[in-house]
Amino acid sequence: MDIEKTRGRYEEELYGSIIPFWEKHCIDREYGGYFTSLDRDGSVYDTEKYMWMQWRIVYMFAKLAVAAGGNDRWLDIARGGYDFLTRHGKAEDGTYYFALNRKGVPSMAPYNIYSDCFAAMGAAAMFKATGEAKYRDEANSAMRSYMGRMDNPKGRWEKAMAGKARRLSHGQFMMLANLAHEMQECLGSSEYNAAAGEAVKAVTERFWNPGMRVLFENINCEGPAYDLDSCEGRMVNPGHGLESMWFMLQHAEQTGDRALVEKAADIVKGILDFGTDREYGGIFYFMDALHKPHLELQWDMKLWWPHCEALISCIFAYRLTGDRQFLDRFEEIDDWTWSHFRDPLYPEWFAYLNRRGEPTHMLKGGKWKTFFHLPRCLFIVAGQLGKLAERK
Amino acid sequence: MDIEKTRGRYEEELYGSIIPFWEKHCIDREYGGYFTSLDRDGSVYDTEKYMWMQWRIVYMFAKLAVAAGGNDRWLDIARGGYDFLTRHGKAEDGTYYFALNRKGVPSMAPYNIYSDCFAAMGAAAMFKATGEAKYRDEANSAMRSYMGRMDNPKGRWEKAMAGKARRLSHGQFMMLANLAHEMQECLGSSEYNAAAGEAVKAVTERFWNPGMRVLFENINCEGPAYDLDSCEGRMVNPGHGLESMWFMLQHAEQTGDRALVEKAADIVKGILDFGTDREYGGIFYFMDALHKPHLELQWDMKLWWPHCEALISCIFAYRLTGDRQFLDRFEEIDDWTWSHFRDPLYPEWFAYLNRRGEPTHMLKGGKWKTFFHLPRCLFIVAGQLGKLAERK
Repeated sequence: MDIEKTRGRYEEELYGSIIPFWEKHCIDREYGGYFTSLDRDGSVYDTEKYMWMQWRIVYMFAKLAVAAGGNDRWLDIARGGYDFLTRHGKAEDGTYYFALNRKGVPSMAPYNIYSDCFAAMGAAAMFKATGEAKYRDEANSAMRSYMGRMDNPKGRWEKAMAGKARRLSHGQFMMLANLAHEMQECLGSSEYNAAAGEAVKAVTERFWNPGMRVLFENINCEGPAYDLDSCEGRMVNPGHGLESMWFMLQHAEQTGDRALVEKAADIVKGILDFGTDREYGGIFYFMDALHKPHLELQWDMKLWWPHCEALISCIFAYRLTGDRQFLDRFEEIDDWTWSHFRDPLYPEWFAYLNRRGEPTHMLKGGKWKTFFHLPRCLFIVAGQLGKLAERK
Repeated sequence: MDIEKTRGRYEEELYGSIIPFWEKHCIDREYGGYFTSLDRDGSVYDTEKYMWMQWRIVYMFAKLAVAAGGNDRWLDIARGGYDFLTRHGKAEDGTYYFALNRKGVPSMAPYNIYSDCFAAMGAAAMFKATGEAKYRDEANSAMRSYMGRMDNPKGRWEKAMAGKARRLSHGQFMMLANLAHEMQECLGSSEYNAAAGEAVKAVTERFWNPGMRVLFENINCEGPAYDLDSCEGRMVNPGHGLESMWFMLQHAEQTGDRALVEKAADIVKGILDFGTDREYGGIFYFMDALHKPHLELQWDMKLWWPHCEALISCIFAYRLTGDRQFLDRFEEIDDWTWSHFRDPLYPEWFAYLNRRGEPTHMLKGGKWKTFFHLPRCLFIVAGQLGKLAERK
């Protein structure tokens, strides 16, 4: 693989196609905040303001604004969203709503802690970009809200009762590891590092089953960790696992933990072996650890984000281990991803393909796709390739 | 079409394959209640007891037990489930939980009124089968709970806030029409007929948009009924619409409302014109009224139940109108349904196919498929064909 050429392709896509698309279409100049439900050509097909999607735009534009090639225009876009979201998006108890309507009136209650998670990331990136203390305060407030809710994340909207097995959710721990990294990087704060260390241990020692070589999404709080008798217990989400693994690699690099590098890299191999569709290519969305029927109807679809996470985890693992297998896997996934998700006619990429790799939706953004996974992937992969090139 | 031969095929499938499969695999002899998460060969892949699925089995076995060809064994199966569900499944306020664990301990709160809906149907069918007053009392209790919750169906688990447009949901109205019919038929009760009349009016006059020839799933409570600016407002569910239409036809026949027969039959045509996949055959799961991107990833999949509902609505409309188009549509859908959903190797049918009609799951039952849509379809279609044959 020609590393410089590949890096150029990633940067060109980011700066020449993806950023301009969102810059042009996502800003709600009338009410503030962003449109994320954008059709193939960028036209708006829904105006609901989903908090995860909104805060992720703040985060991404703030990050890019102060990176090489960035500019104040992008910082203004991030600031505009930040102002809208802090003015309208926060409940009295410091949690963030799940959604607002176009005008900023809360439309969906704060039943989900990931609104707080992405608020923390967005505010932290704003602090890094500006140095203004209010952003740091907001990031710390959202971080503490996130961590304080981990034991009972849905609060009064929790529907589970005594008869439901108590589980730990992989997503909460992987995000804590990533959040702590962002707080260290953006705020210079080591307040969350101990918690991150625990989260990393949980992910790599409890959610990962080395015998089955599967990373579970849900494990039991008490008794045997793995519940192989239920769909929930058997659930595997390869994209989530791959995202988690580059968070682990990031943590390992930051802390100089060589054993963790090796372990996370090995888990990347395990996830790709289990999660790759050898018939049609690409990575499955959801799987069952024992290949029993999956509750999710769309389990065999190919989504843009697991492929983004796979690319990051492979190139990250390659840089940290030098193991050639990761470069081979990167090339294979890079080829499939670019040839299937990239829209040949319009800017930005498709989100949803069927198992064969044919688009089922023409949207470029929606309730679950925003200016986040793809630009982050392009940005980080380009950065990793840059570091690899420097070595030569 | 040879009506007698077709009728024989439906009855043979029901009595020779579907009923024996569930009779053999669904009964939990240790704890009571039913297993519904059944793999291709009938093996259990999860033991959670989802209330909709459980009560629907009570309903279906009770109905079949006292129909021609029925027996007391089926009534015992229904009674066993009924006892388990009334012992374990009811909250103090008279609502039904969403799920129990295998032993009957509530695992998911009663946040959803359709548990009450199917409890009413199951209990009413038990009264019809036995004449025992306790079943009638239970049916009336569940019915009143359902109707009492229609204005605020999720109760304290409601996440929508002031910024969310207030909508009416088609499902609630169509089910009320069906429930009232069942209460009339099973309990001899006309208590709910006035409400049913209102529900029928709402479905056929408000949810149906005659200009667009689309039946909407969600309409605004206030102002213009149709919100074409949001995904929720544009949402169309053809299977739901077809099911709704045979409930309307049933109501029209019961009340001798000729104009309603014509209107509901016309809506069946509209739904099939809009919802049929002319490229690969079959009926789409979810659609957008303006063909904008759909929020649901699995929108283009083919599910067993919309096809079951399509078969009933076509044959029902044909019998009541004599319009040959409905028989043609029945034959077309019958052909696609039987050739794609029927498992050639094991009893019972597949639930989930991709757009091309290839199975994506091997399950025969699960969180959303139980002994209900398919046996009800086979039973009702056979009955309608029987009535058609008598005319000749």
